[in-house]
Amino acid sequence: MEFKSKTNEWIEEVDSALDQLLIAEDVPPQVIHHAMRYSMFAGGKRLRPILCLATAEMFNGDKTKVMPVACALEMIHTYSLIHDDLPDLDNDDFRRGKPTNHKVYGNAMAILAGDALLTHAFEILSKEALADADAANNKQRLQANYEIANAVSSRGMIGGQVVDIISEDNPVKEPSVLRYIHTHKTGDLIKTSVRSGALLSGASKEELENITIYAEKIGMAFQITDDILDIEGDQQELGKDIGSDEKNQKLTFPSIYGLEKSKRMARNAITDAITFLEKTGRESAYLKELAMYILTRKK
Amino acid sequence: MEFKSKTNEWIEEVDSALDQLLIAEDVPPQVIHHAMRYSMFAGGKRLRPILCLATAEMFNGDKTKVMPVACALEMIHTYSLIHDDLPDLDNDDFRRGKPTNHKVYGNAMAILAGDALLTHAFEILSKEALADADAANNKQRLQANYEIANAVSSRGMIGGQVVDIISEDNPVKEPSVLRYIHTHKTGDLIKTSVRSGALLSGASKEELENITIYAEKIGMAFQITDDILDIEGDQQELGKDIGSDEKNQKLTFPSIYGLEKSKRMARNAITDAITFLEKTGRESAYLKELAMYILTRKK
Repeated sequence: MEFKSKTNEWIEEVDSALDQLLIAEDVPPQVIHHAMRYSMFAGGKRLRPILCLATAEMFNGDKTKVMPVACALEMIHTYSLIHDDLPDLDNDDFRRGKPTNHKVYGNAMAILAGDALLTHAFEILSKEALADADAANNKQRLQANYEIANAVSSRGMIGGQVVDIISEDNPVKEPSVLRYIHTHKTGDLIKTSVRSGALLSGASKEELENITIYAEKIGMAFQITDDILDIEGDQQELGKDIGSDEKNQKLTFPSIYGLEKSKRMARNAITDAITFLEKTGRESAYLKELAMYILTRKK
Repeated sequence: MEFKSKTNEWIEEVDSALDQLLIAEDVPPQVIHHAMRYSMFAGGKRLRPILCLATAEMFNGDKTKVMPVACALEMIHTYSLIHDDLPDLDNDDFRRGKPTNHKVYGNAMAILAGDALLTHAFEILSKEALADADAANNKQRLQANYEIANAVSSRGMIGGQVVDIISEDNPVKEPSVLRYIHTHKTGDLIKTSVRSGALLSGASKEELENITIYAEKIGMAFQITDDILDIEGDQQELGKDIGSDEKNQKLTFPSIYGLEKSKRMARNAITDAITFLEKTGRESAYLKELAMYILTRKK
């Protein structure tokens, strides 16, 4: 119960910070700022900012310093969803139960709103680095900024999306391809969310190593449960059509390993995540519960 | 003649640096790195990196420190062209005489290649800021990084593109709208190219102010000549169809002010640019010739 109230508290704080950090809807050209906010406030779980904030809290970081970075991560996540949903890519009409960005604003504006969210994220990261230029830990901040850009690059998040698209046209049930897609398409942003929270809070090299493995393992489990929910999930609760992976011949964990083995793999990943989390020696009740939540989530 | 050989020298240096900074074509996923390089090496004039390098030279900057930033600016410029050319936006099949990115790689890959070039630009900017964290002028570098992100944001380059698209559907011959589009769509990136070259080379506040006006004026003249070339230019030399502005009912200088007045406006902008360039009191033969070249360019 404490996990849930803490989560809700963070969601509220993130939403309020996002509202401050995003450009107001009355700033010209208004339509793009509407479009950006539409997808930013379409009911996201705020998993990435919460991971960043929770990791920072574990390492006694300064929340006010970490919050803009946490919000930038959510903007990057949202830009990637807007572009993924486009007719030229996954062609999805609904996301979290609401019409996707291009269904509301048209394809051109959705492309530009995605571009603008990605750009705005980097604007925030650069602005914070400049404001904190004289801070003792500015090097860690610059390291975090660099890692975030790298994580969402053509060898990171975009790379995962590219291979996902290619393998749709040419489905081969190759575990290494599946691993590539998931490590990069969802895993890299989750990992960098955790690492940037740690970097901004002065984690030691060893702490950083352990928390990185935690992040990799929950990222993997998150993706496996995503694949499982597309088979066993509740359409209403998920806010999107189920069965779309099979329809689109997507390479998924269940399609390669079957449902039961996939579930076991997710459980094992979470067990490993918790082991490495505890190796940091830090107070980490929230991140432990978050790992377990990933395993049992319904949406 | 010296202007031409200096320009060619810089183009070669920029091309070689871009080749180093872009991800190699054999790095997976290969297709996206091919797509990114295809548009990066499709015969651009390298105006933005050259502006950055020439400004840095004028202020006795360190070329090796400025070059990655100059290349990042060209990556951002190229991403914006790839996305602008998409069927959902301007729907252009040719650019600089070659098929546009989406004609070669498909719409999905063109969207992702644009995303990846933008991301790669910020990755380079962050990496340089990190590598130079202990340098005396790191604050100016962080300032440049922030200004670049801001210049290409929803209130900058993307904002200009948004208004351009909106005004196509609803053409009003309103000078303030034309001014908005051109100031932001092309002007802001040109301005930030000059300013970042100056910032990285320790220009004083006053020098920065004067060179900024130079940049604004040449940006305006560049756009006016662009509009004029779409009417009077040579299709072969330009590498793209002429007359497309009129066909698409684009808001242009000639459509509002007529051809003769537009030409006069371009000449006046260049005269002003040179006045402010000289006010810096720096040796600036190249930037002066570049301003005059903008007025007489054929492509």
